[in-house]
Amino acid sequence: MPGEFEPHARCWMAWPCRRSAFGARLEAARAAYASVARAIAVFEPLTMLANPSDVPEASRLCGPAVTILSMEIDDSWTRDTGPTFLIDEARRAAGVDWIFNGWGGIYPDHEKDAQMARKILDHLGMRRYAADLVLEGGGVHVDGRGTLLAVEPAILDDRRNPGMSRKEAENILSAYLGVKQFIWLPFGLENDETAGHVDNAACFARPGVVLINWTSDPLDGNYRGCRENMAVLRASRDASGRTLEVIQIEQPGYKEGKEGRMALSYINFYLANGGIVMPAFDDPRDQAALETIRRVFPDRKVVQLPVLDILYGGGGIHCITQQQPEGVPLFPHLR
Amino acid sequence: MPGEFEPHARCWMAWPCRRSAFGARLEAARAAYASVARAIAVFEPLTMLANPSDVPEASRLCGPAVTILSMEIDDSWTRDTGPTFLIDEARRAAGVDWIFNGWGGIYPDHEKDAQMARKILDHLGMRRYAADLVLEGGGVHVDGRGTLLAVEPAILDDRRNPGMSRKEAENILSAYLGVKQFIWLPFGLENDETAGHVDNAACFARPGVVLINWTSDPLDGNYRGCRENMAVLRASRDASGRTLEVIQIEQPGYKEGKEGRMALSYINFYLANGGIVMPAFDDPRDQAALETIRRVFPDRKVVQLPVLDILYGGGGIHCITQQQPEGVPLFPHLR
Repeated sequence: MPGEFEPHARCWMAWPCRRSAFGARLEAARAAYASVARAIAVFEPLTMLANPSDVPEASRLCGPAVTILSMEIDDSWTRDTGPTFLIDEARRAAGVDWIFNGWGGIYPDHEKDAQMARKILDHLGMRRYAADLVLEGGGVHVDGRGTLLAVEPAILDDRRNPGMSRKEAENILSAYLGVKQFIWLPFGLENDETAGHVDNAACFARPGVVLINWTSDPLDGNYRGCRENMAVLRASRDASGRTLEVIQIEQPGYKEGKEGRMALSYINFYLANGGIVMPAFDDPRDQAALETIRRVFPDRKVVQLPVLDILYGGGGIHCITQQQPEGVPLFPHLR
Repeated sequence: MPGEFEPHARCWMAWPCRRSAFGARLEAARAAYASVARAIAVFEPLTMLANPSDVPEASRLCGPAVTILSMEIDDSWTRDTGPTFLIDEARRAAGVDWIFNGWGGIYPDHEKDAQMARKILDHLGMRRYAADLVLEGGGVHVDGRGTLLAVEPAILDDRRNPGMSRKEAENILSAYLGVKQFIWLPFGLENDETAGHVDNAACFARPGVVLINWTSDPLDGNYRGCRENMAVLRASRDASGRTLEVIQIEQPGYKEGKEGRMALSYINFYLANGGIVMPAFDDPRDQAALETIRRVFPDRKVVQLPVLDILYGGGGIHCITQQQPEGVPLFPHLR
C-alpha cells in the first residue's frame, strides 16, 4: 500500500444520500461534498459515485471536471468502503476488499456499501484481494515503506473482529498491505462513532514524519488520548528503523453534533497530486492549522474548505475520499 | 488495432438523447438500446454513457449489470465517436481520437460528441493519439493482422477530408492503426446517411474470412454495389498475402424510415467475448441471417434482438457499440 502522498491516478468519492446521517443538513452536505470534489479535481481526476436518481444533482453541483459514475450506494464514505489500493514494484495496481459491517453494525443498512470496493475494482478491471478482516480504510494509515499506523480499538473491536488478537490482525494486515512495522495508537478522538479511526488521530506527512491531532486543554476529553498517542509515537520506530518526527496540530474547539460532540480534526485532510484539501471548522484555530499544513508541505498548494456540514454526518474530508495510486491495473485473471 | 473478434475488456455505449434523430420513437429506441446493453453485458463489462439527466432512466432500463457513466453527449453512436482502441505486443492499450465533424456536418450539434473519445480515454487514464483525419469508427474494419476494410466514399469525402487522396488517407490510417494492406470497397448501402460506412457493407469474421451484405434482387438499389464490392474482395489479398473467403448474408427487405429507405444490414452486429449480438428487422430473412451467423461463429452464443427502433435513428447494433480490447492502459505521460 503506497502512502497517500505518492502519485495518484484518481480520487474516488460518493455522493451523500443517507438522510438519517445528515438529517436536515443533507443538502448542505451535498454542497460541501461538491466543493471538496471540485477542489480535488483541480489536482487529479476524480470520480463521484452516486445513486442513479442523484446523478443529475451531483453532476450539476460538481461541474464538468468531475466524473459521475452511477452506482447503488447506502452512504458516502469511500475511505471506509472503497478498495484499499496497492501497487507493486512494476507499478501494477490492485485493491484490497475488506469486510464492511457498517462500522461495527451501528448502521444496519450497509449491504450496498459492502459491495462498493468490489464494484470499483470490477469497473477498473483490477485484481481484487478479498481480506478476511472487518476493516474500514479510515482505520489504517501507512508510510508506503512498510510502516502502518492504526488506533487499536477501531480494529480489535468486539463488534468488528471479536476475539482477534493484535498479532492475528498484524498477520492479515501484513499479508495484504505489505507492511512489517505496526504502530498501534491507544486512542481515537472522543465521541468518534467509528471507535476512533486513525485518520482523525494521526497521519504520515511523508516517511518519518507524523502529524498528530493535539489539544493543550487539560479539561478536553481528548487531552489524555493525545498524550498517550504521542508517547507511543515517540517510543516507536518505523520499518526503516528510524524514530519519527511528530508534529502537533491543535484541534478545533468543542462543536455540538447530532449526538453530542463532533469528532473534529485537522488531520483529516486529503493529499492530492501537488495539493492538499483540508478542513475549516469555523473555528479560531483554522488559521493556525492552515499555516502548519503549509509549513509541513511547502511543495503543495493547500486549499482549506468549510466542512462542518460533512462532519455532521460523521466524518471529514479524508473519510469521504479514497486515492487510487498511479499504476496500471493488474488483471483479475488471464483469459 | 485488434480485430473486434479478439478479447475485450469492456464495451462502450451511449444513451440515446437526440430527439431530432429518433423523433417519437426515442422512448422505443431507449428500450432497444437497453436490450442490446443487457445482452452484451452477459458476455463482457459494459459502460453506458448518459447525459446526467438521463442517468436515472438509463440505470433503470439497463439494470445492475450495466455501468452508467454520466457524460454530456449530443448523440449515441460510440462506434463513430468513441476512441478506436489499440493494443501493442505487450497488450498495453491506447486509443485514437479521430476528428469528428457530425458525419460530414449533417448534424450541426456535435461538439460534445467530438470530445467523447478524449473523455473516455481520460477516464481510463489511457494514452490518446489525436489523428488529423476526419473519420468515424464505423468507417473502418480491421482483421487485427494488418488488413483494413473501408468504403471509400465515407472517408474520401469532400465533407470530411476534402481533397485528400487515397494514398494520403492510407498513410494516416497506417500510422495510427498499424495496418499495411487496404481494401477499399466502392459502395456503401443505399441511403446510408454516413455515405456508406463499411460496418453495413462487410466485416471480418476472423482473419481471412469476410462477411458481405448481399442482395439477390436485381431491382434492389444495393444490387450493383454488392456485386462491385464482391469483385473487389475476390480480387484482394490480406496483409498476410491470402485471398479472402467471402460469405454473403442476404439483406432484409425494403423498410421505410424517416427519410426514405432505412439502411439495414445483418452485417451490423457486435462481436462480444464468447458471443454475438445481432439484429432482427421483423423480416422474413431474419432467420436465415441468424443461421448463417451461427454457422460462421460456431463457438459463440448468438443473440438476435429486434432493433428497428434503433435503425430509425440512423444506425444499428455495431454503430451503437465500441469494444475496448483487453489490455492495460498505456499511461498518457510519466510523472
